[in-house]
Amino acid sequence: MMNAHRWADILRVDEGFRLADVDPGSTPGYEHGKSHGARDLEKGLASLNTLQERLFAESRAGIAKDAVLLVLQAMDSAGKGGIVRHVVGGVDPQGVALAAFKAPTAEEREHDFLWRIEKRLPEPGFIGVFDRSHYEDVLIGRVRALADPSEIERRYDAINAFEAQVAASGVRIIKVMLHISPDEQKARLRERLERPDKHWKYNPGDVDERLLWPQYMEAYQTVFDRTSTDEAPWHVIPANSKWYARLAVQELLLAALEDIDPQWPVAEFDVEAEKKRLEAS
Amino acid sequence: MMNAHRWADILRVDEGFRLADVDPGSTPGYEHGKSHGARDLEKGLASLNTLQERLFAESRAGIAKDAVLLVLQAMDSAGKGGIVRHVVGGVDPQGVALAAFKAPTAEEREHDFLWRIEKRLPEPGFIGVFDRSHYEDVLIGRVRALADPSEIERRYDAINAFEAQVAASGVRIIKVMLHISPDEQKARLRERLERPDKHWKYNPGDVDERLLWPQYMEAYQTVFDRTSTDEAPWHVIPANSKWYARLAVQELLLAALEDIDPQWPVAEFDVEAEKKRLEAS
Repeated sequence: MMNAHRWADILRVDEGFRLADVDPGSTPGYEHGKSHGARDLEKGLASLNTLQERLFAESRAGIAKDAVLLVLQAMDSAGKGGIVRHVVGGVDPQGVALAAFKAPTAEEREHDFLWRIEKRLPEPGFIGVFDRSHYEDVLIGRVRALADPSEIERRYDAINAFEAQVAASGVRIIKVMLHISPDEQKARLRERLERPDKHWKYNPGDVDERLLWPQYMEAYQTVFDRTSTDEAPWHVIPANSKWYARLAVQELLLAALEDIDPQWPVAEFDVEAEKKRLEAS
Repeated sequence: MMNAHRWADILRVDEGFRLADVDPGSTPGYEHGKSHGARDLEKGLASLNTLQERLFAESRAGIAKDAVLLVLQAMDSAGKGGIVRHVVGGVDPQGVALAAFKAPTAEEREHDFLWRIEKRLPEPGFIGVFDRSHYEDVLIGRVRALADPSEIERRYDAINAFEAQVAASGVRIIKVMLHISPDEQKARLRERLERPDKHWKYNPGDVDERLLWPQYMEAYQTVFDRTSTDEAPWHVIPANSKWYARLAVQELLLAALEDIDPQWPVAEFDVEAEKKRLEAS
């Protein structure tokens, strides 16, 4: 199994990146198949849990300075929910802060698009997860012309300034686009329509957005060109294979936590004296 | 394995309940041991997940009216964290809303004690978990005389009125006290002192509270006498055996979800027409 930082390197959006060149059915850097991938996911979970518990311990001890923020973006049915459930869901819920961003409310629309985002940033010691994010405001916002072109244009720079500030405060930002093919999406939406217990996951609007696939890919490409920075790089994860996407996100989380390298806090009390107090109690 | 409602019946605090009569080392209503208990926990998880997913589906479809609220109270080291991790942690994090209540902040102290609680109630379709709660205000609040006796007295009725209103809005309230013995606590705190990777879980204040054990048990007894209602009953769960406590809480959650009996939402769109639109897209 390759090292977590290798995954980050392979999947990162660097200068000259072309989304059109990524095969959504590929499994870059991973030579094994599904069953091996499931076992590696299970193994990685143990490491993820140890690192997360140390980070959380630092927060309880009041010495945590760092946090992790996983930003998930994707076309419908690409597997954001599965990532939350099978990757993030393996971590102690006490150390996770999940925020799912829907279409903005009337109150939210009265503020700058980053207003509701800032309120949900993870505290030091936490792993924050954004299920959709401020990027909706330059994705559907652009494709559906929900704002003037000059406002959309302004947002890319606003996002970079915001994320640079967030990163400087100690948050490791991991931005992920789960990339599926239109055919894979069709198969997944078909299954939702065929199974009554999946109807709730289907929305007729999904097909409306699907019809704008090329426009969305163009909007994503612009997002990558404009907002993949050293402080907050994008990663495009081929996601036709759910198992691969889950493994890849887990590795990105591991790389971020290994960078933070959280340590068990050193006791600020006199351990021997406390042992005596406890025994006498 | 007994039916989930039987667990609720056995563990519920009814008229005449005496905390002093509960053996923290017992496993009421369960004839098997630890390994069998672990298997039953695993089995129950599948049922819990199905019921939770249906409840969440109702919320996504905008038709959920009900929610579940698990209130966890206990002496230090009794296992609240383990419940969150091993019982609640088995459920899709997208449908869980966890709130850990610490000592109130200056802002919170300026408001009524229920002010911060109300803001964290679960939305319809969610399983809310309170790790500590408004009961701290009549537990440590009483034992440490953090408020006047008349104010403490007022709070029991305020809690009952509040919870009756919350229950009427569709929230199934499950109140749980995890009950360990002083000896078991001593052993658990000792382990925290002996292991450097557990020091962060130890606080010298834990021994201060431990020295007030009889006063805390009296405060809990008063809580049970005054606030175990039909709408929001208390359950005392012997918790010297962690596996038993986890199984019991899972069963209480299952009973609440079975009562709600959430159903897969019926599609509000024309399924056949959508299939055609999808295939044409």
